[in-house]
Amino acid sequence: MTDAPRKRRGGGRAARVALRAAPLAEELRPVRAGMTGGVYKPLSDSDIQRIHEAALNALEQIGMVNAPDSGVEILTGAGCTLGDDGRIRFPRALVMDMLAKAAKSVTLPGRDPKHDLDLSDSRVHFGTAGAAISIVDTQDGSYRDSTLQDLYDAARIVEQLEHVHFFQRPLVARDITDNLALDMNTIYASCAGTTKHIGTSFVGPQNVQPCLELLYEIAGGEAAYRARPFVSNTNCFVVPPLTFAEESCQVMELCVRAGMPVLLLSAGQAGATAPAPIASAIVQAVAECLAGVVYVNAIQPGAPAIIGTWPFVSDLRTGAMSSGSGEQALLSAASAQMHHFYGLPGGAAAGMSDSKMPDMQAGWEQAISNVMAGLSGLNMVYEAVGMHASLLGLSHESLVLGNDLLGQVQRCVRGIDVNEDTVGLDVMKAVCLGGPGHYLGHEQTLGIMQTEYIYPDMADRQSPGEWDLAGRPNLVEKARAKVSEILGRDGHQFPAELDQKLHDNFNILPLQRQV
Amino acid sequence: MTDAPRKRRGGGRAARVALRAAPLAEELRPVRAGMTGGVYKPLSDSDIQRIHEAALNALEQIGMVNAPDSGVEILTGAGCTLGDDGRIRFPRALVMDMLAKAAKSVTLPGRDPKHDLDLSDSRVHFGTAGAAISIVDTQDGSYRDSTLQDLYDAARIVEQLEHVHFFQRPLVARDITDNLALDMNTIYASCAGTTKHIGTSFVGPQNVQPCLELLYEIAGGEAAYRARPFVSNTNCFVVPPLTFAEESCQVMELCVRAGMPVLLLSAGQAGATAPAPIASAIVQAVAECLAGVVYVNAIQPGAPAIIGTWPFVSDLRTGAMSSGSGEQALLSAASAQMHHFYGLPGGAAAGMSDSKMPDMQAGWEQAISNVMAGLSGLNMVYEAVGMHASLLGLSHESLVLGNDLLGQVQRCVRGIDVNEDTVGLDVMKAVCLGGPGHYLGHEQTLGIMQTEYIYPDMADRQSPGEWDLAGRPNLVEKARAKVSEILGRDGHQFPAELDQKLHDNFNILPLQRQV
Repeated sequence: MTDAPRKRRGGGRAARVALRAAPLAEELRPVRAGMTGGVYKPLSDSDIQRIHEAALNALEQIGMVNAPDSGVEILTGAGCTLGDDGRIRFPRALVMDMLAKAAKSVTLPGRDPKHDLDLSDSRVHFGTAGAAISIVDTQDGSYRDSTLQDLYDAARIVEQLEHVHFFQRPLVARDITDNLALDMNTIYASCAGTTKHIGTSFVGPQNVQPCLELLYEIAGGEAAYRARPFVSNTNCFVVPPLTFAEESCQVMELCVRAGMPVLLLSAGQAGATAPAPIASAIVQAVAECLAGVVYVNAIQPGAPAIIGTWPFVSDLRTGAMSSGSGEQALLSAASAQMHHFYGLPGGAAAGMSDSKMPDMQAGWEQAISNVMAGLSGLNMVYEAVGMHASLLGLSHESLVLGNDLLGQVQRCVRGIDVNEDTVGLDVMKAVCLGGPGHYLGHEQTLGIMQTEYIYPDMADRQSPGEWDLAGRPNLVEKARAKVSEILGRDGHQFPAELDQKLHDNFNILPLQRQV
Repeated sequence: MTDAPRKRRGGGRAARVALRAAPLAEELRPVRAGMTGGVYKPLSDSDIQRIHEAALNALEQIGMVNAPDSGVEILTGAGCTLGDDGRIRFPRALVMDMLAKAAKSVTLPGRDPKHDLDLSDSRVHFGTAGAAISIVDTQDGSYRDSTLQDLYDAARIVEQLEHVHFFQRPLVARDITDNLALDMNTIYASCAGTTKHIGTSFVGPQNVQPCLELLYEIAGGEAAYRARPFVSNTNCFVVPPLTFAEESCQVMELCVRAGMPVLLLSAGQAGATAPAPIASAIVQAVAECLAGVVYVNAIQPGAPAIIGTWPFVSDLRTGAMSSGSGEQALLSAASAQMHHFYGLPGGAAAGMSDSKMPDMQAGWEQAISNVMAGLSGLNMVYEAVGMHASLLGLSHESLVLGNDLLGQVQRCVRGIDVNEDTVGLDVMKAVCLGGPGHYLGHEQTLGIMQTEYIYPDMADRQSPGEWDLAGRPNLVEKARAKVSEILGRDGHQFPAELDQKLHDNFNILPLQRQV
């Protein structure tokens, strides 16, 4: 009479639990960085074409204002026009030419090559991004100013998380008042904490060269850095609508020339700095990012760049961001389709929550947009873990919980294997025709339990009775214990000699290696 | 230098909040029951074809065992063969013939016609299902036996929830020991609590006729019930693998003859009662449901039936259900594609959580499978709200929270409107070329703020400062207050005269109308 089976069989359970406890060889893991998405398509082909046409029209008819002098020179040199109204307009033929020259497949290296990110096709990667100004205290719900130590700790946590593939600096070290010290120590703390690919930004163009010096020292020379640029530049080169951010453009020019990959980030907010209709917000973001493509490729054809159509969304009642909304999930998934249309590596934001705490709201908000981004085949899913209060707060516990969430999301991205093994009837016949009448102990079942099923670290699958016996463990407390465990270990990622050199030659601020 | 805009503008905020507070006319609402999904396709066309072929082969070569005598007569009469091994085998031509006869578009009526569910094409509806045996106390995490009053209360809550479109009885009233009283009062309490479509099951065939009498009394006669069968039968006619459930089949025969729509439910558990590979579990579920289609249409061609491929999934380490897993989300979304392939109304389970509490885990588990089910165009998304501990527990608070979650999911199902209004450049030009440089107060923004954006009831979008000032409201406590508010009102859905008649003529147990 019940609708659902809930038999819990015995039979080798201890053996199976033990089997799973042993770490899986890399190639056998059910999920990994760079799995291929793209089976979810919110836009039709003609929708995509219309958005593309509208973006070209916007660049040709409205254009962009406020380029720095250097940018005006670069862009007009490439074929743009500068109008009497100060706006730079982009002939559509120029845009198409530059799209043809643009880098189609970019690899973002990790400092450890096992963390390299291949941004070709619809390969999906999840990671952090910024820039929170607060740390969430998940015990009492208070928000305090974020510090350099928090950044280092976040990097050390991400280093341990299987399903978080890159570390774009998620918070601002507000205890550093000097701008150069801020940019340098952001890089130092990130690299010291994790060997995954790092994204960072610069306060102004004056900081780029000194930070490059630091990166060269870490890499073992300029050539080594250029060969494997393990730190890229997150660049808000536009202040939507259709306005260049002068200083960020200057930073971008320097980064492109230094061989540093750039994320061309257009972060409009639908209903505020971007049009309210979802499609229209995408049009504007695409137009702005195409302007960036022209800009970058006019400096250096084929320079590594990621188009970052990051349309955010407003709660139109208040104008506040609603980063955990369904509208946001659609914006980011549709962005991925536009990236695929251009054949360019792309990224957008997903996984953000408006909730102040890692609660049920945070769970559904982070899940909806992350799974849609993954299924759409977004190359770089930024903000995928840890972000609360519409990006104002980072929670270390939420990083750990979000890793679990992303494991399930990635299982969904991996999809369903349909092949002779999975649609052949041999096993079904053996079980049903004179067999045991169930599949639990079958060789096929045991054979795929590790390679096709993913098991959570944090999520609880116990029965109510088992859970009760275990003392009704609280999810967030479990995450807190995991964070303490990670931060209690020394996870510094620089060899002592190199670390000493960095301290000798740069203004490196003190960090606690075990908290 | 920050990655994200976080400007919070003033300007008419109070007016916009007030505007939104007024209820929207039905036709203007951004989302509604029965929106069209189907843009997410985990299976390719050839995958679908292979699964279909394998299911036909399974029915032809392995067949089904354990049909009741009446079923053997019906099925062999239609063209099946009964083997020496007691198994009924289905020639593929017979299956294809019966598919051609099967009802393609079914409407499940609500007792109030505004809640009618049109199950054609890829129209999506979300609702509850069962059958929990416990109620979750969200204050201390304890689980207690569920009662008839809990069922009535759940129905009264669902009646108030915009995004929950039907009420399949989500729990077992464990305080009723008599089986007939259980089935009758389950129907009474459900109908008394909500005017939405109701799904229920019967303990055995002996209960069907007495319960039909109750339904006729509620409807105003047998003809009235047959014209609008507002209660349908959830029927676990198989005990996978490939085994009929005798008594449930007898129930099904009676329901089909009474004009009651049936949900043909195959609830295998991948790795236990169904094969462990995802594709293989789908093959078995499809085979079992096709057997049901033959059975139903052999009784009465075109009888309203929903194919309920509900493959669940095991945690293969323990054999326990992992209803909140990514594997589960894939199983249900792929099921929807198979329903579309056959052109039959279909349903599957999504939105379940393994967590014992409405916490972050519950949020992500419920969200991932619900959004994938919705985007895949599943007609009936069962178990979509309120279910915890792998279906063992129902939480009233979680119903209210899940409604919010489903609002966002439905916004995603609605998708992106690409048309001349949304890709035309008039507004962008007006804003950028001599205009205010932002979209916040623009007519277009105000025009769509109610019709294209959805606003949460429970989810919190305040800034940390505002949230702090508000006393750091806890999400689950907020849901508890909402539940109290709903249950504190008299929401009985029977007029007094009818209610009296029902009490006079049937064994109706007492319920508290306000708690």
